[in-house]
Amino acid sequence: MTTHADRIRRPFALADAVSLLTRTPATLDALLRDLPDDWIAANEGGDTWSPFDVIGHLIHGERTDWMPRARIILEHGEARTFDTFDRLAQFSDSEGRTLASLLDEFATLRRQSLRELEMLHLSGTDLDRRGRHPAFGVVTLRQLLATWVAHDLDHVMQISRVLARQYSEEVGPWRAYLRIIGGTQG
Amino acid sequence: MTTHADRIRRPFALADAVSLLTRTPATLDALLRDLPDDWIAANEGGDTWSPFDVIGHLIHGERTDWMPRARIILEHGEARTFDTFDRLAQFSDSEGRTLASLLDEFATLRRQSLRELEMLHLSGTDLDRRGRHPAFGVVTLRQLLATWVAHDLDHVMQISRVLARQYSEEVGPWRAYLRIIGGTQG
Repeated sequence: MTTHADRIRRPFALADAVSLLTRTPATLDALLRDLPDDWIAANEGGDTWSPFDVIGHLIHGERTDWMPRARIILEHGEARTFDTFDRLAQFSDSEGRTLASLLDEFATLRRQSLRELEMLHLSGTDLDRRGRHPAFGVVTLRQLLATWVAHDLDHVMQISRVLARQYSEEVGPWRAYLRIIGGTQG
Repeated sequence: MTTHADRIRRPFALADAVSLLTRTPATLDALLRDLPDDWIAANEGGDTWSPFDVIGHLIHGERTDWMPRARIILEHGEARTFDTFDRLAQFSDSEGRTLASLLDEFATLRRQSLRELEMLHLSGTDLDRRGRHPAFGVVTLRQLLATWVAHDLDHVMQISRVLARQYSEEVGPWRAYLRIIGGTQG
């Protein structure tokens, strides 16, 4: 029975994390594939990111962040600091690509990452193993995997917000009811 | 050619709106179907909404808000104020339902709504037609349809946030990098 207080935090569970991570490529595919180009390139001004930029960022994360860092923890523990993650890599890597090819690549890489994760057969003790983050210092494998999940959802949220805000003026007085446009989180 | 300033606002275009509205059921299906029950019932505390609550709210919107209000505008103009929308209807309507059946119902209703919208063959002049909102007063059909799009995306954002925040503690020091958990919008 789920009680009220149970509903705002979940303890980390590997099966839940895999279930959430598995669905991100299909979610983003449904949200973005074949949208008109000007929506794919939309952003929030300045050097904020477009949906196109975000998919490139997620690809770079599969290649250099999540499973590579998990392997560093399991092979080297705290002795080897993670490589710094390049938050801007997608601006060169995605150049000349289509959104469709980025979505396909992200889906393929995510499948590979999760297959690799599964093959590690991680135990509760493994999840407690520690690594060293370049800024934060000691972190656990459990924290890394929980962050992978939250990071996916952060970018689903960001893309939804970028798209919705394109209609900030067009919604007229309804702007007052739409938190996504008003900029406050409920 | 998309220039920098073009990227933060899009003028309303019916074909774009239909493209965005079409994809919401599949996006939410990919994000939520078959997630463990405790994630579906997760919320942000107090009387905030869970993913389950949000899908019920979107169903109620299809039944009583978007196309019904569009029809009121086209048939009665400003002469007939819209019925007030019940923001809490899903708490009784969804009782005893499964998430899967709510997702199916939302997809069916959305398809019907968009078929109805298409059959109206709306012109630019039609989009300028005015109706009367119970709180805002005069609004246009264009504003109503733009709001429908932004409202979908608002709830995709909300669901992503509710899910991510379940791991607020589990992410450890990464909390500092995750805007979805820290509560500020980028």
